[in-house]
Amino acid sequence: MNFVIATNVLLNQLLIAQKALSTKTPAPYLQGIKLEALQNEIILITSNADISIKLHIKDDSLRVDIPGDVLIPGKYFVDIIRKLEGEQLELSVIDQNILRIIAGDSDVTLNLLNVDDYPELNFPLSDEPIKLDSKIMKAIIRQTTFATSTIENRPILTGVNIRVEDEKLSAIATDSFRLSQKNITIPKSTDHMNVVIPGRSLDELSKILEMNLDEILIHLNHKSILFEYGNVLFQSRLLEGNFPETSRLIPNEFPIVIKFNRDKLFVAIERASLLSSKEGSSSIVKFNLRSDNIVEITSNSPELGKVTEKVYPLEQVVGVPIKIAFSSKYFMDALKTFVSDEVYVKFTGEIRPFVIEGNSDPGLVQLILPVRTE
Amino acid sequence: MNFVIATNVLLNQLLIAQKALSTKTPAPYLQGIKLEALQNEIILITSNADISIKLHIKDDSLRVDIPGDVLIPGKYFVDIIRKLEGEQLELSVIDQNILRIIAGDSDVTLNLLNVDDYPELNFPLSDEPIKLDSKIMKAIIRQTTFATSTIENRPILTGVNIRVEDEKLSAIATDSFRLSQKNITIPKSTDHMNVVIPGRSLDELSKILEMNLDEILIHLNHKSILFEYGNVLFQSRLLEGNFPETSRLIPNEFPIVIKFNRDKLFVAIERASLLSSKEGSSSIVKFNLRSDNIVEITSNSPELGKVTEKVYPLEQVVGVPIKIAFSSKYFMDALKTFVSDEVYVKFTGEIRPFVIEGNSDPGLVQLILPVRTE
Repeated sequence: MNFVIATNVLLNQLLIAQKALSTKTPAPYLQGIKLEALQNEIILITSNADISIKLHIKDDSLRVDIPGDVLIPGKYFVDIIRKLEGEQLELSVIDQNILRIIAGDSDVTLNLLNVDDYPELNFPLSDEPIKLDSKIMKAIIRQTTFATSTIENRPILTGVNIRVEDEKLSAIATDSFRLSQKNITIPKSTDHMNVVIPGRSLDELSKILEMNLDEILIHLNHKSILFEYGNVLFQSRLLEGNFPETSRLIPNEFPIVIKFNRDKLFVAIERASLLSSKEGSSSIVKFNLRSDNIVEITSNSPELGKVTEKVYPLEQVVGVPIKIAFSSKYFMDALKTFVSDEVYVKFTGEIRPFVIEGNSDPGLVQLILPVRTE
Repeated sequence: MNFVIATNVLLNQLLIAQKALSTKTPAPYLQGIKLEALQNEIILITSNADISIKLHIKDDSLRVDIPGDVLIPGKYFVDIIRKLEGEQLELSVIDQNILRIIAGDSDVTLNLLNVDDYPELNFPLSDEPIKLDSKIMKAIIRQTTFATSTIENRPILTGVNIRVEDEKLSAIATDSFRLSQKNITIPKSTDHMNVVIPGRSLDELSKILEMNLDEILIHLNHKSILFEYGNVLFQSRLLEGNFPETSRLIPNEFPIVIKFNRDKLFVAIERASLLSSKEGSSSIVKFNLRSDNIVEITSNSPELGKVTEKVYPLEQVVGVPIKIAFSSKYFMDALKTFVSDEVYVKFTGEIRPFVIEGNSDPGLVQLILPVRTE
């Protein structure tokens, strides 16, 4: 194998490919990046327990003299390419299992892994993928994955449930204390879909979506889902099992609706959380809609002190006074997902789940379960 | 106690005072900030095992209605003041041991610590302090503290030795594998000084020197040193014991002198360090001045691979070919302390300490001990 390529071209693609690199693995070959040099393109493949990435590099700077396949220790390869200076790199295989990299005044050899150990990975494309604006995909990920469970006793809750039916796509995540749901309208799709994607896979996908491309294609397979984004194929395993039926969790009617400036509400809760008693790892604050229509956010830690914050609703409140207590972290996490400057907090009762919505965030609902306090 | 003050004025001073706050301490009162409200100024005092800070706040926004002393839980106080919104704060003591803070729509109470538990701290000023440009003080700290020892088996080496004699100030740090020395000329001082200041104290002092004041005054006392910087008194304990005599460690004559571009040398060593065998936590690289006057920096890890970097001296080399091996970290740490674009690396022999100097860094010498390799 022997080829030359512009250093920054290879580096930019390696930085994408490395997102599926295993760092700790019982299978050393998964610490490698498989590089295939074809006649006029390079293919990089990486894979770990959750995701696999395959990407094609075609570039004017690429000149392949001798095609070939190698398996390169991933971390070291990326570290070196990142630090090299010369504008152009020459990569070649010498002595069978040694990769030589020449750039500028640097001459580096890397001991290769055995490419025959690398599994054959499939990246099957379907005929009718779902098309999404990549910015919308990125927003969906940001608005839902934070609400997945991080504890593994119910593995299905560590994923985001994505359903496609007719012209509607729903993304739902819940850790059973809160729920995040985003619905969007898509062009009518022939494929139905009801899958659960690991939250961590989606977080990695989101990082790749930094590139400024318009469109992402979603290919659904039997046990995996494949996102096609420009020259990148990003495949994630799916979680097996039934995602809980959440449609009845979100109330339909809200006797109490309060409109807030999002940032003012956020900082009031943040300040109250500084001196609050902890329930588990979470700080509990109390929310009190008074009869004069001012909202008090309070916290009280017998050892430390008390915080009382007044927040003024933006409009005449609908409904009666209510007192409710909740995790400040869950509330702040939820508020951060909105682009809306103004949000509605909607209650059905003091011990019932409540929701947050924003008028510039159509289809987005954040639901939080209150906590009981004496 | 009762006073009002502009929020940002108090916050900026708290951010300085908190640098001497204890976080983990068997003495809970050291987690407190002592606040004294006098007729028309506020004094903040903090202290931990190494350093004590006292600062005076006088400001047009300050109005003290009732003077008094309190001891406030430091971390919570800073967290709260940092997050408050209103431009002005009112602080008052209610119920004897409760501090009330009112700002904007926030109303906070904090349980106070017992101010009588707080030790009486002295910040004695000498009549003839040494005056230094604060930018020079900051540079001295940056150029020396990194070379102090972090292991505690020879406590004296965790400090920086500062000596003042006549018109010369020397700062020296060594962990016995490398040595950093900065000499500057100062106005003739009546006070001689030969003290060892904990490196960590100096690092904290350096953070305070972000303020754009010209001058820092150094007051030497029996067991402590006090830096006066604007409204801030910063006192550090001194390390007891004899700092090793280092003057004979730095060779006087160098048969081999090589001039480099600092950045080019740095990145060559950095790249070589990526694939080098480790000695302890340090990566060893080899430096080889060839007979054609090109310098090769190489590393070799049997498991990983090899790096060979060519670096071209900027001027005709003085001396004969030499091969020497050293810790890449020590070399890179040393190079970072120079503002000079061009540096001289000076050798006396293959197993002898070598030094780095730069022509825009008068008085600065970085010395490194080589390592033996087969």
